[in-house]
Amino acid sequence: MKIHRLCIIGVGLMGGSIALAAKARGLCQEIVGVDRDGENLLQAVELGVIDDACVDAREGAEFADGIVIATPVGSVRPVFESLRPVWSDKAFYTDVGSTKSSVVKAAEAVFGEVPKNFVPAHPIAGRELSGVGAATVDLFLGKRVILTPLPVTQIRALEQVRRFWHSLGAKIHDMSVAHHDHVLAATSHLPHVIAYTLTHMLGRKDEKDEIFQYAAGGFKDFTRIASSDPSMWTDICLANQKEILAYLRQFEKELKAFGDTMEQGDWQAIFDFFAEAKAARQRFLDQHHQ
Amino acid sequence: MKIHRLCIIGVGLMGGSIALAAKARGLCQEIVGVDRDGENLLQAVELGVIDDACVDAREGAEFADGIVIATPVGSVRPVFESLRPVWSDKAFYTDVGSTKSSVVKAAEAVFGEVPKNFVPAHPIAGRELSGVGAATVDLFLGKRVILTPLPVTQIRALEQVRRFWHSLGAKIHDMSVAHHDHVLAATSHLPHVIAYTLTHMLGRKDEKDEIFQYAAGGFKDFTRIASSDPSMWTDICLANQKEILAYLRQFEKELKAFGDTMEQGDWQAIFDFFAEAKAARQRFLDQHHQ
Repeated sequence: MKIHRLCIIGVGLMGGSIALAAKARGLCQEIVGVDRDGENLLQAVELGVIDDACVDAREGAEFADGIVIATPVGSVRPVFESLRPVWSDKAFYTDVGSTKSSVVKAAEAVFGEVPKNFVPAHPIAGRELSGVGAATVDLFLGKRVILTPLPVTQIRALEQVRRFWHSLGAKIHDMSVAHHDHVLAATSHLPHVIAYTLTHMLGRKDEKDEIFQYAAGGFKDFTRIASSDPSMWTDICLANQKEILAYLRQFEKELKAFGDTMEQGDWQAIFDFFAEAKAARQRFLDQHHQ
Repeated sequence: MKIHRLCIIGVGLMGGSIALAAKARGLCQEIVGVDRDGENLLQAVELGVIDDACVDAREGAEFADGIVIATPVGSVRPVFESLRPVWSDKAFYTDVGSTKSSVVKAAEAVFGEVPKNFVPAHPIAGRELSGVGAATVDLFLGKRVILTPLPVTQIRALEQVRRFWHSLGAKIHDMSVAHHDHVLAATSHLPHVIAYTLTHMLGRKDEKDEIFQYAAGGFKDFTRIASSDPSMWTDICLANQKEILAYLRQFEKELKAFGDTMEQGDWQAIFDFFAEAKAARQRFLDQHHQ
C-alpha cells in the first residue's frame, strides 16, 4: 500500500513507533505528527520521526489519506470533534486505544454513528515508557493488532486498515467491541490494577522498613507494569470501568478463598492450586510462542 | 578461604549454582552432592557440577568442613536429623531457605537449640526454573544474601559463612529471623501468591474464551513467578503462614478499597493512586541499581 500523507495524532510511544515503522517500510510519502505537547512534538521532528509537525488535529489531518489517532483513550472524543469538519470519505481512519467501547461511544457522540471509514484498532504492544523518545521501529513486529469493525464499517476501509497494520509487521485479529473489552480487562487491565495496588501498599511499608532493597528480580518483573503512565491507566479504568470492576471483584473473592485455604492449613489444596496455575501459565507460554 | 570438602545437600537450582560458583572461584578441593533424586544427582555428576555423589546426607556430610543445606524448606528438618550423628564442631553449616523461622524451629526441634556453627542464610536470587540443569555460575553475583545469626551463633562460624557467601559473589546483609520473614513475606511471598491466584483464575477463563492469546509482554512478566515450583511454594506458605496471611488480608482490603473508589468514579483519586505507585516503584528501581 502507498499512503501519500499519513497523519498521526499523538506522537508518543505508540504514534512515534507507528511513524518509525511506516518510514522504515516505505509505507508513505510524508508523515505529519500532531501533538498538544509542543516539546514532545519538537523532539519528534528533531529525531526525524515525523516530517511535518502541527498542534492542531484538524489542520494536520485535512489533506491526509491515512489518519491514526494515537492519543490516550480519554482524548479521543475531542480529537473526533477537531476532525469532524475535515473528515474525508477518501481517507481511512484508525486508532490505538486500549479500550474499544469508549472509542465507539465517543464516535457516536460526535458523529451520530461511527463513521464508515473509521476502523477501531488496538495493538497489543507497548512498553512502560512513554513519549516519542521511547518509540521503537519494531514495536509492532510479530505483535497482535485487534480490529473491532462495526456493522456500519465499510469493507474497503477495513481492508485498508488491515493492510496498514499488517504492513507495520503486526498479526491482525478481528473481534467484537464488547469481546475485546472483556478479554483485555482480564489479561491487561486487571493485572495493571493489581500491580499498582501492590506497589502502592508496599511503597508505604518501604518508607518505614526499607523492604525494597531485599526484593529480587521476580518482584521487579511482577511490578513492571506499575511503572506505566498513570494518566493513560486512569483513562482506561474510566473507559472500561464495568468490565474491570467485575474482574476485580472476582479476583478479591479468589484471593480471599486462597487465604481461607491457607488459614485452614490445607496444604494439599494449596499445592494443587499452585500446580494448576503453573500449568495454565505454561499453556499461555505455549500459545505465545506459536 | 579454602574448604577441603564442601557438601551440598540438595543439588537443584540453588545447590547446583553454589557448586558451580565455588568451583569457578577455586573455593574448595572437592564437592560432594547429596540428593534424594537419583536422576538429578546423576545429571549433576555428568555436568561436572559435583565431584562426588551420595544419596545419604549423613554419609555425604561426615568428612566435610563446609555443609550447605539447599533443599526446599520443608525438607530441612529431616536433613538435620540425618546430620545429627555426624555433626562436626570443626565444620560450618548454612542453608538457603526462603523462610528462616521455620528453619530455626526445625533446628531447635532436632538439636534442642540451634547449633552454634549453623548460620541460617537466604540468597535473594533465583529463577523460575528448577533442577541442576537450571544452575548457573553467576546466580549469586551481585545478589544479596541475608544471614540471620542467633544469639547462640559462634562468631567464627558467622565469619566463615559470611566469607563463603561473599566468595560466591554475593553482598551480605545481617537481619533478625523475624524481620527476615516479615520483609520477605511482603516482597516475595505475597507477590507469588497473587501471581498464582491471578493465573489460576484466568487459566480457567482461558479454557472458555482463549484470552491468553491476546495477552501481551506485560502479562508474561507479571505472571512469570507463577511458573515457580509448586512444591517449594507450598512449603514456603506453610513455613511463613502467619506473615503471609497478614499481608494477604491487608492486600485484600486495599484491593477492595481501590474497587470502591473505581465504583464511585473518583478518577482524581485513581490517578493519584497510580502516580504514587509509579513513584514507589521508581524508588525501588533506584535502590536496585545502587
